Amino acid sequence: MLLSGNKSLNKNIPIPLYYQLKTILLEYIKNEHVDIEEPIPTEVDISQHFGISRPTVRQAINELVVEGYLYRIKAKGTFISKPKIVQNFLLILDSFNSEMKKKGLTPSTKILAKELIESDEEVSQALKINPGEQVIRLNRLRYADDEPIVFVITYIPYRVCPGLMECDLEKESIYEIIEKESGMLISNATRSLESIIAGDFESKLMGIPKGAPIQFFESVVCLEDGTPVEYSLAKYRSDRSKFTFELKRQFR
Amino acid sequence: MLLSGNKSLNKNIPIPLYYQLKTILLEYIKNEHVDIEEPIPTEVDISQHFGISRPTVRQAINELVVEGYLYRIKAKGTFISKPKIVQNFLLILDSFNSEMKKKGLTPSTKILAKELIESDEEVSQALKINPGEQVIRLNRLRYADDEPIVFVITYIPYRVCPGLMECDLEKESIYEIIEKESGMLISNATRSLESIIAGDFESKLMGIPKGAPIQFFESVVCLEDGTPVEYSLAKYRSDRSKFTFELKRQFR
Repeated sequence: MLLSGNKSLNKNIPIPLYYQLKTILLEYIKNEHVDIEEPIPTEVDISQHFGISRPTVRQAINELVVEGYLYRIKAKGTFISKPKIVQNFLLILDSFNSEMKKKGLTPSTKILAKELIESDEEVSQALKINPGEQVIRLNRLRYADDEPIVFVITYIPYRVCPGLMECDLEKESIYEIIEKESGMLISNATRSLESIIAGDFESKLMGIPKGAPIQFFESVVCLEDGTPVEYSLAKYRSDRSKFTFELKRQFR
Repeated sequence: MLLSGNKSLNKNIPIPLYYQLKTILLEYIKNEHVDIEEPIPTEVDISQHFGISRPTVRQAINELVVEGYLYRIKAKGTFISKPKIVQNFLLILDSFNSEMKKKGLTPSTKILAKELIESDEEVSQALKINPGEQVIRLNRLRYADDEPIVFVITYIPYRVCPGLMECDLEKESIYEIIEKESGMLISNATRSLESIIAGDFESKLMGIPKGAPIQFFESVVCLEDGTPVEYSLAKYRSDRSKFTFELKRQFR
């Protein structure tokens, strides 16, 4: 527990006390199976336990509030946010719907826009098609249990899947439609990953503060013969998403 | 190029124009092999080309400046930031030094603190040791070409590697020391990944704005017999780091 056990701060190292406390609080938030209906200990209790000033405690808690790990309710205290949805599709290419169902969550999708446009140079490069070729562009917001989780812009070459324009993409699986129309399986992807922060649009769309952290994935998904069929830009709100994976060492 | 070709904005979809422009600018920044010594086109030129207002252009550029993709120099214009260091160690467990050398960058490390402490519950759980057992805690700042890239807190069980306390960890490789002392190879890791934002400490330490995006990795590294030997919390500044990987679909 936070206020028992052997955690202590070290005043003799060049790591600020607020930051040492923040690290301890974060471990507590992540690893203790605490009742999230109960507030965490008060600033006074924490400052007395660790022998530090209240402003130092407040600085640690404030940063955790800004990062979305804690939230305050006036006159009630500071509470731990819902745990993030842990996703492991970094290594295994899986659809959002299938991944959410495995976690026991109900996925849903809102199509914000579906357009037929001419491919520009960047999209052409990603999809290995000629600039000017027709591509379907989708803007989608995807939910888990009615909570918006990720905003995705997707480009699909029109000739790979002309039928897509007529489908109800809030109900049907794009990967299944592509596999049916192409007669091939979707088999692999290259993905890159960056941290960014929410701008005005993402903030309004997903109900998160401006400046909140976001996971940004850029992916090119290919059929078994190597043909790129999807280029997507996905923005996951980071207060609800955490990604895990296993690594192996490569011995030369 | 940005002001030629077939990119256009769609006024008939519920995606804000500033956001559509931001997406186009970001593709331009990432994919065009432009001269980063040259400013990007002016707000006036961009607004005329796309037929949108200057405040709309400014909103898109402002968000890209806040995210670190662009920066402004007074009276000179808006420039593209240095490209991020692309790292692929998400799948392959590799040391920071070895990863940076492969990119042609010179790695270096500053030890901020090296302490022998008692393991608390969270660290014990990660390293599968008893609470109260001695662990070595390191606070390190790691650089590429003299630029701070990642701040890492590392916990190593003392009994796995007592010799570590005497070593010059700014020069020697921790993995090599652990392998020599244990007589086993480091073989795999589990890692989780979140986006967070820089607080006061990370901001000062790495010279990035408060609120700048950070990639946060939490890893447990194991020997070939499965013994955990390292638990680490690493914060990469996201303006300089991008991670890439390959995914395969798992067929059931």
